[in-house]
Amino acid sequence: MRPSSRAFRLSAVPIVVLCALLFAGLDAHAQTDPLPSWNDGAAKKAIVDFVQATTDKASPKFVAPEARVATFDQDGTLWVEHPMYSQVLYCLDRVPAVVKAKPELAQVEPFKTVLTGNREKIARLPRGDLEKILAATLTGMSVEDFKAEAKKWLDTAKDPRWKRPYTDLTYLPMQEVMKYLRTYGYKTYIVTGGGQDFVRVYAEEVYGVPPEQVVGSAGATKYGYDKDGKPFLTKLPKLLLLDDGPGKAEGIYLMIGRRPYAAFGNSGGDRQMLEYTGAGDGARLMMLVLHDDATREYAYGPAQGLGPSKVGTFTQALWDDAKKKGWTVISMKNDWKRIFTFEP
Amino acid sequence: MRPSSRAFRLSAVPIVVLCALLFAGLDAHAQTDPLPSWNDGAAKKAIVDFVQATTDKASPKFVAPEARVATFDQDGTLWVEHPMYSQVLYCLDRVPAVVKAKPELAQVEPFKTVLTGNREKIARLPRGDLEKILAATLTGMSVEDFKAEAKKWLDTAKDPRWKRPYTDLTYLPMQEVMKYLRTYGYKTYIVTGGGQDFVRVYAEEVYGVPPEQVVGSAGATKYGYDKDGKPFLTKLPKLLLLDDGPGKAEGIYLMIGRRPYAAFGNSGGDRQMLEYTGAGDGARLMMLVLHDDATREYAYGPAQGLGPSKVGTFTQALWDDAKKKGWTVISMKNDWKRIFTFEP
Repeated sequence: MRPSSRAFRLSAVPIVVLCALLFAGLDAHAQTDPLPSWNDGAAKKAIVDFVQATTDKASPKFVAPEARVATFDQDGTLWVEHPMYSQVLYCLDRVPAVVKAKPELAQVEPFKTVLTGNREKIARLPRGDLEKILAATLTGMSVEDFKAEAKKWLDTAKDPRWKRPYTDLTYLPMQEVMKYLRTYGYKTYIVTGGGQDFVRVYAEEVYGVPPEQVVGSAGATKYGYDKDGKPFLTKLPKLLLLDDGPGKAEGIYLMIGRRPYAAFGNSGGDRQMLEYTGAGDGARLMMLVLHDDATREYAYGPAQGLGPSKVGTFTQALWDDAKKKGWTVISMKNDWKRIFTFEP
Repeated sequence: MRPSSRAFRLSAVPIVVLCALLFAGLDAHAQTDPLPSWNDGAAKKAIVDFVQATTDKASPKFVAPEARVATFDQDGTLWVEHPMYSQVLYCLDRVPAVVKAKPELAQVEPFKTVLTGNREKIARLPRGDLEKILAATLTGMSVEDFKAEAKKWLDTAKDPRWKRPYTDLTYLPMQEVMKYLRTYGYKTYIVTGGGQDFVRVYAEEVYGVPPEQVVGSAGATKYGYDKDGKPFLTKLPKLLLLDDGPGKAEGIYLMIGRRPYAAFGNSGGDRQMLEYTGAGDGARLMMLVLHDDATREYAYGPAQGLGPSKVGTFTQALWDDAKKKGWTVISMKNDWKRIFTFEP
C-alpha cells in the first residue's frame, strides 16, 4: 500500500472521533457542571475563574495552550495519606519477601521490628530506619520486576478502614478538577514526594496522568545486560531527586522546564511548589487541601488542634502564609459535597 | 459570563482548526511525499515502513497512540556537531564575561588559554579543563539569567563555515522525520548528551520540541529567595544526569518512563539508547546518521578513515554492531537529497 492512501485512512479516524467529541463536549458543557462534587463557594469559584481567565482568548490573562501546566501533589491532595502513606505500607508489606531472600536480615533492625507486625512499634521507627526499609524494598531489582511487584500489591492490598484498594481512595472532587483542566488544554502533572516509579505504575489508570507527567522522588538506575545480552535497568539506592519542599520546585524545573499556572497541595512539603507557581506573571492558582473532615475522611495536623501528624502537615504557619499570599484553602468538610466515588 | 457559554466558544475554536487541518492534511498526504529531502533507498523505506506498521490499526504491530515515543540525539543527528559542539562554543564565548566578573581567573588555567583565543590550543585542553569551563559558564546564575544569556548568544553567534546562526544548521531530512512522526501521533523527544537547559532554550522554536520533551545532561538547582522574597532557582555545579551512553537509557527511564519505539543517533554515545529501544517488543526503528559527506557537511570518525574525532564517533565497532542488530545506517551523502534549508 502506498503511504499516501494509508495516510488518508489513518488521518480520517481520529478526526471523526474528535468531531464526535466536539458535539458530545458542547452538549456536556452547556448542560452540566464540570465540578459536581464541589459545593458552591470561594474554592470552587477560584477554580472556575482561573480556567476562564487563562483559556478565553479575549482575556488579558490568556495563557498559550502549550504553556498550560497544572501540578498536583498526590498524598493528601489527590488521595488519602492518613494514617500512613500507601507507598510506605507497600514497602512494609514487601519486607517478608526481602527477608526470605536474605534470611540474615530477620535478626537485624529495623527488619526485625517490621516482621513483628506491631503497627505501633513500626510507626515509631526513626526516619533513618524507614530509609533502610525503603532502600531494601525499592531498589536492587530491575525496573520491570519492581513494576510487576508494585502492580500486584496495588491489585490486592486493601485499606483497613474502607476495605478497598488504595487506588479507590482518590478524591472525586480533585479528579474532577484534573479533568476540567485537561478539557481546557491543561497538562496535569503529579508532583509527589513519593516515589516517581511507584506512582507511575498506576497514575495513568487512576488519574489519567501518563508516566511522563509524573514527577516524584527518583533514584538512579544502572544500565546493564542479562545473560542473553538483553539490556535492562536496575534500580539503585542512590537518590537523584528528593521531590519534596524546595525539591518540588527544583523537580518541576528539571522534569517539566516550565513554571506551572496552577498548583495544588496540602502540606508544608508543597509550600515551595505553590510559591514558585505564584511567582509567575498573570493568573496563577494556588490551592491547599485542608483535612478537616473527621467523619468522612480524617482531621489532622496542628491546624486542627490534633497535634503533629506522621504525614504531611498543614501547620498554622502555612495557614497564615496562605491567607497572606492569596492562596485558596479547600475545606474537605465544607467545599466537598462528595469525597469518594464509592460513597453517596 | 457563565462557564457553559464560554465553554461553547472555546471548544468550538480548536475543532474548527482541526477540521481545517483534516482536509489540508488529507490533501497534503495524498499528493506529497512526507520526506521530500530523502532519496529513495533503504533508510527512507525503513522510516515509512515503521510508521505504517505502528500506526495502522489493522497492523499486528500497531502501537497505542499514548505509547508512541521517538527519541533523537541532537549533536550530529539533528544538527552539525563538527568541529566542536555548539554548546562548548557558547561556553568558550562566555569565558571573557566570567573573567570580567572574577578577574583573578585571568591568570588561572584553563581560563588563561581560552582568553588567548588560540583555537588549536583550546581544542587540545584536557577533559578536566573543559569541565571547569562548563562549570564556570553554565552554573552559579539563576535559571532565568542563564536562559537570557544563551538566547542572546544563539541570536548573534555564527558558524564560521556557513556564516549563519547555529540554529540554522539543522538537517532538513531529520526535521522532516520529526514532523512525519508527529503527524502520526508520535511524541518526539530530544535525548542529548548536551545540556538539557541549553537545548530547551531553542528546541521548541527550532525543532517544534517543547521543553518537557528535551532530556539532556542536567545539573541540580537550588531553590532560594531574592531580596524581595521572590523565589528563584540557581544552577549548581552538581551533575544529576550525564545523558550519554548508558545515561541515555537511564535518562529516558527517568524523564519519560516509557521505552521508545524509534531512536536516532550518530555515535557511540547513542549505542545504549538504540539497544534499549531495540530490546522492546513489536516494531522498533533504530537509525544512525553517518557523516560521510565532506562536500556538503563533513566526513569524520574512524569509519571514514579520518582518525579519531573530538566529537561523537561512529566507529567500526558501532558499524559492525549496527549491521548485526539490524539498525539502519543513514548515509548523508547517499540518503539525503538536501541537507540544509538554506542550500538548494
